[in-house]
Amino acid sequence: MSAPTTDVIAIGNAIVDVMSPCEDALIEKLGMTRGGMTLIDTDQAHALYEAMGPAREISGGSAANTLAGLAALGAKCAFIGQVADDQLGEVFAHDIRAGGISFATPARAGDPPTARCLIFVTPDGQRTMNTFLGASQFLPAAQLDEAAIADAAVLYLEGYLWDPEEPRAAMRRAIAAARGAGRKVAFTLSDAFVIARHGDDFRALIDAGEIDILFANHVELAALTGLDDFDAGLAALSPKVPTLVVTRSEQGAVAVSGGLRSEVPAEPVAKVIDTTGAGDLFAAGFLFGHVRGRSDAESLRMGAIAAAEIISHYGARPEADLQALMVQKLG
Amino acid sequence: MSAPTTDVIAIGNAIVDVMSPCEDALIEKLGMTRGGMTLIDTDQAHALYEAMGPAREISGGSAANTLAGLAALGAKCAFIGQVADDQLGEVFAHDIRAGGISFATPARAGDPPTARCLIFVTPDGQRTMNTFLGASQFLPAAQLDEAAIADAAVLYLEGYLWDPEEPRAAMRRAIAAARGAGRKVAFTLSDAFVIARHGDDFRALIDAGEIDILFANHVELAALTGLDDFDAGLAALSPKVPTLVVTRSEQGAVAVSGGLRSEVPAEPVAKVIDTTGAGDLFAAGFLFGHVRGRSDAESLRMGAIAAAEIISHYGARPEADLQALMVQKLG
Repeated sequence: MSAPTTDVIAIGNAIVDVMSPCEDALIEKLGMTRGGMTLIDTDQAHALYEAMGPAREISGGSAANTLAGLAALGAKCAFIGQVADDQLGEVFAHDIRAGGISFATPARAGDPPTARCLIFVTPDGQRTMNTFLGASQFLPAAQLDEAAIADAAVLYLEGYLWDPEEPRAAMRRAIAAARGAGRKVAFTLSDAFVIARHGDDFRALIDAGEIDILFANHVELAALTGLDDFDAGLAALSPKVPTLVVTRSEQGAVAVSGGLRSEVPAEPVAKVIDTTGAGDLFAAGFLFGHVRGRSDAESLRMGAIAAAEIISHYGARPEADLQALMVQKLG
Repeated sequence: MSAPTTDVIAIGNAIVDVMSPCEDALIEKLGMTRGGMTLIDTDQAHALYEAMGPAREISGGSAANTLAGLAALGAKCAFIGQVADDQLGEVFAHDIRAGGISFATPARAGDPPTARCLIFVTPDGQRTMNTFLGASQFLPAAQLDEAAIADAAVLYLEGYLWDPEEPRAAMRRAIAAARGAGRKVAFTLSDAFVIARHGDDFRALIDAGEIDILFANHVELAALTGLDDFDAGLAALSPKVPTLVVTRSEQGAVAVSGGLRSEVPAEPVAKVIDTTGAGDLFAAGFLFGHVRGRSDAESLRMGAIAAAEIISHYGARPEADLQALMVQKLG
């Protein structure tokens, strides 16, 4: 087995975020779940866009955001995800490549268009997401570059993409390719609704030892374990994965590796502008520390710093110089 | 002549800005003119986009930005401009309508695509613009809604759009329609390069008394009058237009109406993030004051406040509540 030349290869939704500030009343009026992620169809996408104020477009997608953070920190990354052959697809592809990330999945011709996520951001910075998956859900398993997967130290998978059938098959093949090459598999549970639909799959993968690093937030931990108590959930899940990382919003985050628990408080933020991508960038910081051989405690701190940067501005792609920020904060 | 039901109707480029921060070295390497606006073709657009870092997309276009500011201040506005029938066209149309602005120009089928402006923003906040005009230059004169123009107190025209032939013809018709209905015509000179190409047209319009409110910056004033000295330029031009408004970046702005000169200093800004749209929003603030019957001095101050808001964040569309800002600053 030769040494990997890529740090992290990820499979995720290839999405452009369409973001607009809004008052809390609009969230209620539109019947949306504050802070949640809802899948929407074409008609709903049109209706919600109609109800949305002037917006800005910034590339997103959970795993893609994580890679953008990793690449900004200096990691060598590659992304696998499906855009359509349209303008938003060009925007997504440009932004990911301009971030220094290798991206070779060919654009898909015809309908549906490139995925977009309509994000309503309330004055407290909370984001409420409505995702039109479009082309993203048609990532074909046959297209997977297994050599590229075998050549990365970590394969990172986004739970959101477990929902549609084709990408799920692709991710199963990717896991096999990574494990066959002796690489690590990292997985983020993404959202409680994914666990509600695919929790059995996730539990089976975990029980089979297919996941080396598992990312969750406290709500997802409870959903996966069926245990409302945080420590009970942690105690139940952590023996099943080599590294478990659980974020708890303003309460910081916890990692457990081989029974050893590390903890970090949330990094202070002057003003929370937009929480979109907080978990994604936490994962970026943690994974960067992890692939560079840092301790869990140090990696958690890097996650907290990257997450604090992302919630202090609009959009889920880093704006500040993350490397400089780490030097400044960590010395 | 009945009272107008719209405050300002504008004709301008329908553009989506593609904005990315960059170092000064990139501006030099790409041979761009710092702070300038350059028209680019399809090949140049591809090459520059390739060279650009991760970006964000925010609707722009000079006159459209001015209307966005006016509408945010509470004015009733309408926009005329040409998008293509594509995703960026949908983005532009959504953003302008979501800002409460009437926009009825039908999207144009086929090539070229919707206009975009590749904007490189250096660490000092200066923007260097590269505009691919696309569909925007094919605004047909035949499409003009002359009744809508006759129904607006002010017709506002963007000098940038004087360059392509079809919109120039449309704007000439619009001027005739507005004047025929006894409305005011406001014009912004936009950029020295437009004056270099069409200065004779502009001087003829001004000499014929077709322009009631003329907006320029100090560079454009010099280009139009051929006088480098600011006061000499002002003295030469101001007798020819009922109201002349000239901005001077950090030196504030001057208005001259009927021989009376008013002046305002630049509004202080904690940190200049991106100067894109500074002139556009200055015009918005001034025009809002003007149509609401404020004095030139008060209108200038409103322009300075709106301009200060726009340069304190990315993008040329207002983010803060401009009405609240005016109340706070003006009492």
